[in-house]
Amino acid sequence: MKPTQKILTTILDEVRPLIGQGKVANYIPALAEVSNQKLGIAVFTNEGEVIKAGDAEEGFSIQSISKALSLTLAMRLYEPEEMWCRVGKEPSGQAFNSLIQLEMEQGIPRNPFINAGAIVVADMLQSRLSAPRQRLLEFVRQLCSNEHVIYDKVVANSEMQHSDRNAAIAYLMRSFGNFENDVLPVLNNYFHACSITMSCVELAKTFSYLANKGRSVISGEQIITPTQSKQVNALLATCGLYDGAGEFAYRVGMPGKSGVGGGIIAIVPGEMTIAVWSPELDKSGNSLAGTKALELLAKRIGRSIF
Amino acid sequence: MKPTQKILTTILDEVRPLIGQGKVANYIPALAEVSNQKLGIAVFTNEGEVIKAGDAEEGFSIQSISKALSLTLAMRLYEPEEMWCRVGKEPSGQAFNSLIQLEMEQGIPRNPFINAGAIVVADMLQSRLSAPRQRLLEFVRQLCSNEHVIYDKVVANSEMQHSDRNAAIAYLMRSFGNFENDVLPVLNNYFHACSITMSCVELAKTFSYLANKGRSVISGEQIITPTQSKQVNALLATCGLYDGAGEFAYRVGMPGKSGVGGGIIAIVPGEMTIAVWSPELDKSGNSLAGTKALELLAKRIGRSIF
Amino acid sequence: MKPTQKILTTILDEVRPLIGQGKVANYIPALAEVSNQKLGIAVFTNEGEVIKAGDAEEGFSIQSISKALSLTLAMRLYEPEEMWCRVGKEPSGQAFNSLIQLEMEQGIPRNPFINAGAIVVADMLQSRLSAPRQRLLEFVRQLCSNEHVIYDKVVANSEMQHSDRNAAIAYLMRSFGNFENDVLPVLNNYFHACSITMSCVELAKTFSYLANKGRSVISGEQIITPTQSKQVNALLATCGLYDGAGEFAYRVGMPGKSGVGGGIIAIVPGEMTIAVWSPELDKSGNSLAGTKALELLAKRIGRSIF
Amino acid sequence: MKPTQKILTTILDEVRPLIGQGKVANYIPALAEVSNQKLGIAVFTNEGEVIKAGDAEEGFSIQSISKALSLTLAMRLYEPEEMWCRVGKEPSGQAFNSLIQLEMEQGIPRNPFINAGAIVVADMLQSRLSAPRQRLLEFVRQLCSNEHVIYDKVVANSEMQHSDRNAAIAYLMRSFGNFENDVLPVLNNYFHACSITMSCVELAKTFSYLANKGRSVISGEQIITPTQSKQVNALLATCGLYDGAGEFAYRVGMPGKSGVGGGIIAIVPGEMTIAVWSPELDKSGNSLAGTKALELLAKRIGRSIF
Repeated sequence: MKPTQKILTTILDEVRPLIGQGKVANYIPALAEVSNQKLGIAVFTNEGEVIKAGDAEEGFSIQSISKALSLTLAMRLYEPEEMWCRVGKEPSGQAFNSLIQLEMEQGIPRNPFINAGAIVVADMLQSRLSAPRQRLLEFVRQLCSNEHVIYDKVVANSEMQHSDRNAAIAYLMRSFGNFENDVLPVLNNYFHACSITMSCVELAKTFSYLANKGRSVISGEQIITPTQSKQVNALLATCGLYDGAGEFAYRVGMPGKSGVGGGIIAIVPGEMTIAVWSPELDKSGNSLAGTKALELLAKRIGRSIF
Repeated sequence: MKPTQKILTTILDEVRPLIGQGKVANYIPALAEVSNQKLGIAVFTNEGEVIKAGDAEEGFSIQSISKALSLTLAMRLYEPEEMWCRVGKEPSGQAFNSLIQLEMEQGIPRNPFINAGAIVVADMLQSRLSAPRQRLLEFVRQLCSNEHVIYDKVVANSEMQHSDRNAAIAYLMRSFGNFENDVLPVLNNYFHACSITMSCVELAKTFSYLANKGRSVISGEQIITPTQSKQVNALLATCGLYDGAGEFAYRVGMPGKSGVGGGIIAIVPGEMTIAVWSPELDKSGNSLAGTKALELLAKRIGRSIF
Repeated sequence: MKPTQKILTTILDEVRPLIGQGKVANYIPALAEVSNQKLGIAVFTNEGEVIKAGDAEEGFSIQSISKALSLTLAMRLYEPEEMWCRVGKEPSGQAFNSLIQLEMEQGIPRNPFINAGAIVVADMLQSRLSAPRQRLLEFVRQLCSNEHVIYDKVVANSEMQHSDRNAAIAYLMRSFGNFENDVLPVLNNYFHACSITMSCVELAKTFSYLANKGRSVISGEQIITPTQSKQVNALLATCGLYDGAGEFAYRVGMPGKSGVGGGIIAIVPGEMTIAVWSPELDKSGNSLAGTKALELLAKRIGRSIF
Repeated sequence: MKPTQKILTTILDEVRPLIGQGKVANYIPALAEVSNQKLGIAVFTNEGEVIKAGDAEEGFSIQSISKALSLTLAMRLYEPEEMWCRVGKEPSGQAFNSLIQLEMEQGIPRNPFINAGAIVVADMLQSRLSAPRQRLLEFVRQLCSNEHVIYDKVVANSEMQHSDRNAAIAYLMRSFGNFENDVLPVLNNYFHACSITMSCVELAKTFSYLANKGRSVISGEQIITPTQSKQVNALLATCGLYDGAGEFAYRVGMPGKSGVGGGIIAIVPGEMTIAVWSPELDKSGNSLAGTKALELLAKRIGRSIF
């Protein structure tokens, strides 16, 4: 069955009662102030159709979802052997901001979606691009076909004020020789990437290349190779949902990436992308109602990679 | 493209040079004595067709591949809420036989495919079945439509002689209240499951239900529900290849389960199962040439879940 | 100043208000049933004088204090190089029954006073003695000059019923090759040692050799060499109080060993031994009022090794 | 027996063959360039007598020995309850620069002698002193009665250039709220303290207060209270030798503090201090020949706290 607006609306009604059972991220004021009542979903098919419901066109902070976009940009700039010696491809089995494994594994982060891995990717972009922050924004705008996508400076600056843990991660990698640039500028770029503001509709469009063998459904441009597209999806499936990746695969069965802003992007390779948004998080840091909406949608339309 | 015998033969030729670069499991004599030259592959399609090459009909010790079969049997006997409070669904990020995480997480194993998880599953079977060892064998014979599948007593007894680490795991879980029966009989059953001997062709047939929404292609019987089948595949995709699950997803892109006997079963949901066998292992304990064969086959026939 | 009965009595009065703020060990009924009101102290000087107050002549389960006695016996049977390759001499920095460090350090326990280390020592005694359980009891009776010291069979059997965690520890060491005998008989002996029942007066007498350069004050017999005596004291000072060794050194400043029965033995080398008993434990598992009594006594009589 | 110059000279001759079996610290050039042939020892008695042999008057980088001096200064400025909530008193059981335990224990370092603990102490000094770097130097000069003690700027700057690991530690503590000031100035002060240059004779004099109940033998000034002096000695005995504290207690039996410059200070409470210097380190980072010299001296003169 194909997703319809009616299905999406019904699903949002079914998951709305979950609001109140999770917890909005509150480590920075800019996130804590977002209303927990927000709830939106958007599907973008490989035919270019948008189906949506709820607050699907309201922008929110994509946070860690940006890690998949930074990785994609880095994969365009680096040979695999240059990249995968600096960051692994395995689930971490630990909290997203832990330094324990990072110390035991000599400064090589387990995968590009935990903080340490994303910070290494930001360091890679810094080394190869003359204006990495501007370039990433252009890249995202191009993927989304929307010149109005912006960094939220308030969010970025607020993150930078609470950057001690990530600074510790970066310095630890530097002590192992897995960090090439000054720590603070790289962290600043990293936080800017996290502060990108997009709506569900924009997110679903932005990630269309991962459902379409690396080619953007919007522009028709080949963003990464079909093989690279499969690889990113594989990484998302095993490592994209913090330490809830197994549960997400079990319940939803799609590659996906979540952010503490309450957004999740999920991919149905060959068919569509799905973006959801609900700010309250479960204990793994993934959107509570958002995950449930994806689970219901997967069941309703009979889609799963498994 | 469909897999053909020619494709399979070519692929075996291409991976054969890898033999000599891995290491045959040697912790028990019965495994150490297997020739490292063995190399086989078999595909079993949802239409019931067998395509095969190399040593595809020679039996070998399936070892940890049995963990997926034991899990399937347990899922038929337990409600989800009874089962998943005793074992998790997340990648462990640690070695398959580590006690570290098990202690930190109060005796609840991360997933059913690390040793601790499989031993808990064996304990569950012990609690609900009057003759669990015999019952598991019947179950496997039924899945395979082959009454001649047997436990290799020499392998099972040899494992039992080297069971200290697994005994430590079981006792640690017992100390946390996550183990219901006497340790030694459960370990004995666990090792018998690991000692099941099958060929690539038999393995591919046995697992056909996971490519066919829970229904055995051979007997037509519904082994588990379609939802359960997706769930098992999800668990295999995130946790099935020891601490090489991410790499396997990245390179092969199929749910799979490996064993230290050098076998790997991989699933293409909706289409086919693929079994490979090559005894030399990589550093994560997965068949070196076997993984490469699956990677080449995935590329050649354009199949992947991503 | 010399310790007097008046000083001891005063100190007991001062620490009695702490009763109610700790927690009696309750993992086995035989310990849980002991009255939390018990409070005793005894000093035994190198001149052979006993000074005592409170419940100083009532027997209690010495529990882990026995680890120092087993170690002493093993040091009489083994060359240092045979012994210290199987167990270390460093503080563990972890809980007394943790397997984490044991796995990371390949089955070699950090020191003889954590459970793993004491179990290795029990394994050593098993290998060298024909009747290790009987021999240890004779050894303790000789140290104490009291033929009536016994194992409390109820305690020993109760411990054996709750032995899963220690069995896990023993099997883990066996899997690393650091365990020579069958697990269960060794654990049984280990638990018997823990079940030895003695009073404060008996304990203080028993350990007199450690205050007297290895020579028993009672019998005049040289139990271990002066150097070995210093070594045992050094181990007690750095590792004798579970993960509260640093705090104990800071507050009390004497080598000591505690047990979950609420006893503590402390050594003033060259002068005296001091035994205290109060069943309620602090969060590190050391007697709450007992530690305070030692701290006050050390201050009152101006004794400390520092 | 009292230590004599002859005894010291003999001991240096006995340990000199160990030179070549250790490894000079080489993480900064200024340390790597020191000749491995240097070997010195000095005793300073509570009667004010200096006995010395070898390179006892040549200055070297005291490195982590300074942690005991910084702690002493902080103990003069802080109430115990202000201090010991920010840093613990227990052996860490881990490497001196590990972040693992620090993360697991919420940013509270185990003791003041691992890097994390010493950096917290530096942060404490920064908060209470207007010119902490100058003040520490004055304090050390006063202890030593030598106005010529200096910071080695080359060493300090070189350490600062290799400060990534320590910066990671400081930022991690800051993320847990256990760090009050800017990271870099505190690290700079910390490295300056490590760069203090003193000879064995100066070191032995400087630490005389710890052998003399808190009162400097040289100036007669009460530096810390007798109780505080015992407390520092207790901390040194359990935590002063990195993860070799247990071995040092076992072999030498004195409170001590080592530095990667190859120096060790040891205390015989009530009698004397002993400083040794030999740049080659054992695998725990303690002076190889220096430890042996202390072991031999302890045996020769029959001194030990045990």
